[in-house]
Amino acid sequence: MTDTPFARLENLLASNPVDGIMLTSVASLTYFAGYEGQIEWGSEPWLPCPGALLWMRGETPLVFLPEGANYAAADSRIDRIAFTSYVYQEPLPGIQSLIKAIKDALKPRISTVSAVTIGAELAYLPSALLISLIEACPHIQFADISSNLAEVRAIKTPAELQRLRQAVLLCDCGQRAAKEIACAGMTEIELYSRIHAAMESEAGCRVPVLADVLSGPRTAEVGGPPSSRVLCKHDLVLVDLVPRLEGYWGDSCNTFAVGAPSEPQRTLFQTVQNTLQGAIEQVRPGLSVSELDRFVREKVTHAGVNFPHHTGHGLGVTWHEEPRIVPYSSTVLREGMVIALEPGMYFEGQQGLRLESVVAVTSNGAEVLTEFVHTL
Amino acid sequence: MTDTPFARLENLLASNPVDGIMLTSVASLTYFAGYEGQIEWGSEPWLPCPGALLWMRGETPLVFLPEGANYAAADSRIDRIAFTSYVYQEPLPGIQSLIKAIKDALKPRISTVSAVTIGAELAYLPSALLISLIEACPHIQFADISSNLAEVRAIKTPAELQRLRQAVLLCDCGQRAAKEIACAGMTEIELYSRIHAAMESEAGCRVPVLADVLSGPRTAEVGGPPSSRVLCKHDLVLVDLVPRLEGYWGDSCNTFAVGAPSEPQRTLFQTVQNTLQGAIEQVRPGLSVSELDRFVREKVTHAGVNFPHHTGHGLGVTWHEEPRIVPYSSTVLREGMVIALEPGMYFEGQQGLRLESVVAVTSNGAEVLTEFVHTL
Repeated sequence: MTDTPFARLENLLASNPVDGIMLTSVASLTYFAGYEGQIEWGSEPWLPCPGALLWMRGETPLVFLPEGANYAAADSRIDRIAFTSYVYQEPLPGIQSLIKAIKDALKPRISTVSAVTIGAELAYLPSALLISLIEACPHIQFADISSNLAEVRAIKTPAELQRLRQAVLLCDCGQRAAKEIACAGMTEIELYSRIHAAMESEAGCRVPVLADVLSGPRTAEVGGPPSSRVLCKHDLVLVDLVPRLEGYWGDSCNTFAVGAPSEPQRTLFQTVQNTLQGAIEQVRPGLSVSELDRFVREKVTHAGVNFPHHTGHGLGVTWHEEPRIVPYSSTVLREGMVIALEPGMYFEGQQGLRLESVVAVTSNGAEVLTEFVHTL
Repeated sequence: MTDTPFARLENLLASNPVDGIMLTSVASLTYFAGYEGQIEWGSEPWLPCPGALLWMRGETPLVFLPEGANYAAADSRIDRIAFTSYVYQEPLPGIQSLIKAIKDALKPRISTVSAVTIGAELAYLPSALLISLIEACPHIQFADISSNLAEVRAIKTPAELQRLRQAVLLCDCGQRAAKEIACAGMTEIELYSRIHAAMESEAGCRVPVLADVLSGPRTAEVGGPPSSRVLCKHDLVLVDLVPRLEGYWGDSCNTFAVGAPSEPQRTLFQTVQNTLQGAIEQVRPGLSVSELDRFVREKVTHAGVNFPHHTGHGLGVTWHEEPRIVPYSSTVLREGMVIALEPGMYFEGQQGLRLESVVAVTSNGAEVLTEFVHTL
């Protein structure tokens, strides 16, 4: 059987003591069902989750999506059930319509006398849905399978790797635009909007982006959204771009100077660049993430200052997932993991600098997905 | 007492058969507590809701927000409780940290023997939180007060009207940019990105935007995101912009031609413009929204075609709220309501045109908040 997220869901259902699985997060709908929906303007005021995926043991997997949603099933076995959340001719059905559709599908499939356990993501399951299902089927129970899902997602399939590659190339496009566009006299928000436009033009569609855009003394603050601060000559500009493309998140960070960099800025850049390069060279299956974290932290601490964040993190259908590259973790790198590595050095009240690349763990080392070359 | 959202929450708590209120939606945290958080890149992977507002009868109102969140309380009586959702030194606390903070606050405040009812928004209450609270306090019950909240929000306070005015002015800025920028040869997404950049530059910060940007035959599809379609001479371009500024949503739509409009396009524009103008002239306290809806629908139907959406809707901390201007509703316009009116005409496979303005219902008519003048 081909290794697809959907095949992994089948394994999860087969190997867990549950009678069915019901998923309601954007991440799970993207990953298992191939529906990423939209996120940029929050959830619809009448619908708190994008839909639901329901798979009862031995039954056809069902995906519940709003009528009119553009959807191509991730697996031919998935049946789609459309529910009407918006109409203008009568009161807004909203989430009640999703609840009714799930109840209608569930009731004939579950026993009215013996206990039935549904694996779900309790953090992303609206209470309105939970309560309605318990009322309709008093023997239903819910088990949180969030950590199983996180574990399953940590290793990327070849198709996912390809998606991530594309998302990281979109970061590269944004980082190139940042260096071309940035100049003294422009505000951080103007710079950011033009970077965003460059990525959207490249993608040919809207691109949700999480971004840190900081300049001058703000770079010491590690992260934050672009503000109306005006870029000045000799400022450092920290640009961390995390765009979503076809449901998958890229990640990248570069820090560069407005105009010619100063000698201390060059030294700082060189230290962080060497650290990042050294970290990438460490990456291989079998390396513990805590070791990788220690390697990076020792390098920058030796150079004068620690950083108040993780050394890196996995990414995929969310912008932060397993494996986290952190001091305490007992996780070991495995082939197929994709991680962003992002050492930084920040000097309070002065300036900070961070560089980040995304790498895939291969059978014997790392493939760097980031093609953009960091320059100061 | 000054009419503020927070004072309205106090009334709600006083007049409802509940022992406390717990709110977890972005809309309610914005409206009652003054915390809009971020929405553009989805919820944090470790935190499904921005935080929570908890007010037990006779106690201090509490707002639970992630550590480091930039927050100025909407009312001096609100106490802030910071919870740690992200750390790198140990496993991610995520939503468990919010749950623990709420449990710690709630347990000493509620009886362990008699029933306690909490008013909540069940659609936006994560099941993980609901289940944990029920486990900790078996006598707790939850009552859905979503419709009370929707009702309370329908009438805007003077301070809210000011926020909405600013958000609508941001739409005007976007619509002016659209007309200036659009030209044959550019893609819809390029046009949209530059409109977005103009609004962000004006606002001096990132601006979440829901937008329809359609050109040529796509305008017949009523709505949809900007695509990579190239604008051609004589195309209509439909631009519906819904930006959020300081937690409040503006709304506007204009449709214009690339190059000189054709005679049929002029006629179509004139019909919809007259309809919109006529609708605005109808607006006054006491008018039923179904009457307003009928007025608009009759005008366009008389001209040849109905539209498959509402005539308009309220807006505030969400981009679609009460009052809905729809055929079935028994709602009557009242002073302080703010509504977007958006008649359109769409001809399948050919083209469509929609115009939209936002108006506030005054003591004897309407104040048009949209300053941009629609032109073809």
